[in-house]
Amino acid sequence: MDAKEINQMLPWLLRRENVAAYLDGKVIIGDRRKYPFEKVFVSCNSVEEIAKAIEEMVTQGGGPSIAAMYGLVLAARHCAGKSERTQKETLEAARLRLTKTRPTNTSLARLLEKTMVLAEEFIDQGANLESELLNWIENYRDENYERYGKVGEYGASLIDDGDGVLTMCFAETSFLLSLALAKRAGKRIHVFTPETRPYLQGARLTAPSVQEIGVPVQIIGDNMPAYVLSQGKIQKYFTAADLVTLDGHVVNKIGTFQNAIAAHYHGVPYFVYSGGADNKKPDRASIEIEERNPAELKNCRGIPTTDQSIDAYYPAFDITPPHLVSGVVTQYGILNPYDLKRYFGEKGLV
Amino acid sequence: MDAKEINQMLPWLLRRENVAAYLDGKVIIGDRRKYPFEKVFVSCNSVEEIAKAIEEMVTQGGGPSIAAMYGLVLAARHCAGKSERTQKETLEAARLRLTKTRPTNTSLARLLEKTMVLAEEFIDQGANLESELLNWIENYRDENYERYGKVGEYGASLIDDGDGVLTMCFAETSFLLSLALAKRAGKRIHVFTPETRPYLQGARLTAPSVQEIGVPVQIIGDNMPAYVLSQGKIQKYFTAADLVTLDGHVVNKIGTFQNAIAAHYHGVPYFVYSGGADNKKPDRASIEIEERNPAELKNCRGIPTTDQSIDAYYPAFDITPPHLVSGVVTQYGILNPYDLKRYFGEKGLV
Repeated sequence: MDAKEINQMLPWLLRRENVAAYLDGKVIIGDRRKYPFEKVFVSCNSVEEIAKAIEEMVTQGGGPSIAAMYGLVLAARHCAGKSERTQKETLEAARLRLTKTRPTNTSLARLLEKTMVLAEEFIDQGANLESELLNWIENYRDENYERYGKVGEYGASLIDDGDGVLTMCFAETSFLLSLALAKRAGKRIHVFTPETRPYLQGARLTAPSVQEIGVPVQIIGDNMPAYVLSQGKIQKYFTAADLVTLDGHVVNKIGTFQNAIAAHYHGVPYFVYSGGADNKKPDRASIEIEERNPAELKNCRGIPTTDQSIDAYYPAFDITPPHLVSGVVTQYGILNPYDLKRYFGEKGLV
Repeated sequence: MDAKEINQMLPWLLRRENVAAYLDGKVIIGDRRKYPFEKVFVSCNSVEEIAKAIEEMVTQGGGPSIAAMYGLVLAARHCAGKSERTQKETLEAARLRLTKTRPTNTSLARLLEKTMVLAEEFIDQGANLESELLNWIENYRDENYERYGKVGEYGASLIDDGDGVLTMCFAETSFLLSLALAKRAGKRIHVFTPETRPYLQGARLTAPSVQEIGVPVQIIGDNMPAYVLSQGKIQKYFTAADLVTLDGHVVNKIGTFQNAIAAHYHGVPYFVYSGGADNKKPDRASIEIEERNPAELKNCRGIPTTDQSIDAYYPAFDITPPHLVSGVVTQYGILNPYDLKRYFGEKGLV
């Protein structure tokens, strides 16, 4: 499947033009905070505006990486015609600012580094930095969609007719493609999506997207997966990952870990979609977990959930150890979490 | 400790006069949906209004039982001077209506049955039904507070200096008394309370109540207990129970079970506060789990959390098997969940 065909199988939220787009000096980011209530975009005119948008959760999952990369294109535009040194300094400042937006997301940091290396080459060559970077990023994005297609096919092969599927947060393109491909193959599936407090990615992003591709879906509370598992309604548990360490620890949205414990308790396998392991993150000790502002947990869509004088604690991610992970679904197949060094130890992530 | 002393140790929400009160032909119920934003009461003039208030979650935990019992006092007032047969029929109709409000709460059903037996005796004796019932119910309530005191002391004995304590939903009087007593004994404690979607009992009721008695507390998401456990911040897990079966299965607010799995995984004991086991509920098969309107899960304090066309699933309670229960904290001590028949098999609950 090529990028175009894949794009057409996807729900609105995941189509490449709706994730983030570069439009002649502006970066347009699909606003996932407002979806599904409104299908609107945030328009950014500067690197700082993009960084703020990422920090304020306008986009998430794969969105921040692509929006941040477009940020470097914007920086290139703003320093066009300046000295090589000024161009390099401007882009490097942009890279640092954009990297800081998501400390747990190493893929964002890695892609910005890669884009930066290329940018320096383009600058040295005296090329049109803005258009060369843009071209490279859009090629990267389309190749990425094609990789998602492969990963989605491996995921679909794990789904059996009649399966109940548990997920967490918004597992994005590969997961949605797996469901679409399984459905196309005539498999009947039913998805349970925990709402994922405090940002409600499960309720707001996953549920409408699954419904949009024609797969039955029910929202449950973040407190319900174990009970639904105990009823025998779930046969597979799938999530994405913000990061997989070389020794098979999975970092993903908070809640992923306790669902994995509950799935394991009930004999249900847990599969994680990932580009692969990050060879700069050897083990659990190398993981930094982002703690977000506790105030975010004391509201729901702007409405206070309790007296604001009360304290809260909001670690945004958790860590699932490899013995709870049945497989890491990658473009190379369904890998054993204890065998990731062989694939990613030397070359790292694509 | 007598009922008065216990009452004074409790936070606003749990003081007997704020749970539910009978005031000359009206039943005043503390509105737990509005707390802590407002400290207000719902005033009910009929059995149907009380039943609706219970169904609409005005009160919860121990509140529905006492409010429903006052409902029979109200019914008695409304049929005063009628024939014995009419009085009995009126009270029986009230009992049936009030019992229907909470299918999972067998303690409510049992207390209404007990009150009904007494009411029939009062009617046969030609006594003033309204005042005799009221007197009996308020005595029952005060004896109950004294029992809570005993249970609270057993609970406090389980808390060590420096403990992090996880709870779920609103474990009410015995739990709050345990914290107050542990604090009075100089033990430093820190409580983590999951918010408990969709009604936010953890965020709205537990957190302010724990804060009010001067114990540090943090709200976490329902998706966070396992991660906080993995950080070594929690040493004990306590909840109340809506029902404990004779063979040690604990029915409580949805989420209790997955927290118990996560606690067990991390070697943290789980203790449940309960009046004891219900000898009409021998085992798991005898439990009816209330499924509430899925629409309730698609909102948070009246604000939609997703597109309302999407389906949801809302089982309101879950079942924790006895092998995950370290002890049932009762007025008789900290009982083994496999030894409840000895205490409650013959005589049932008080």
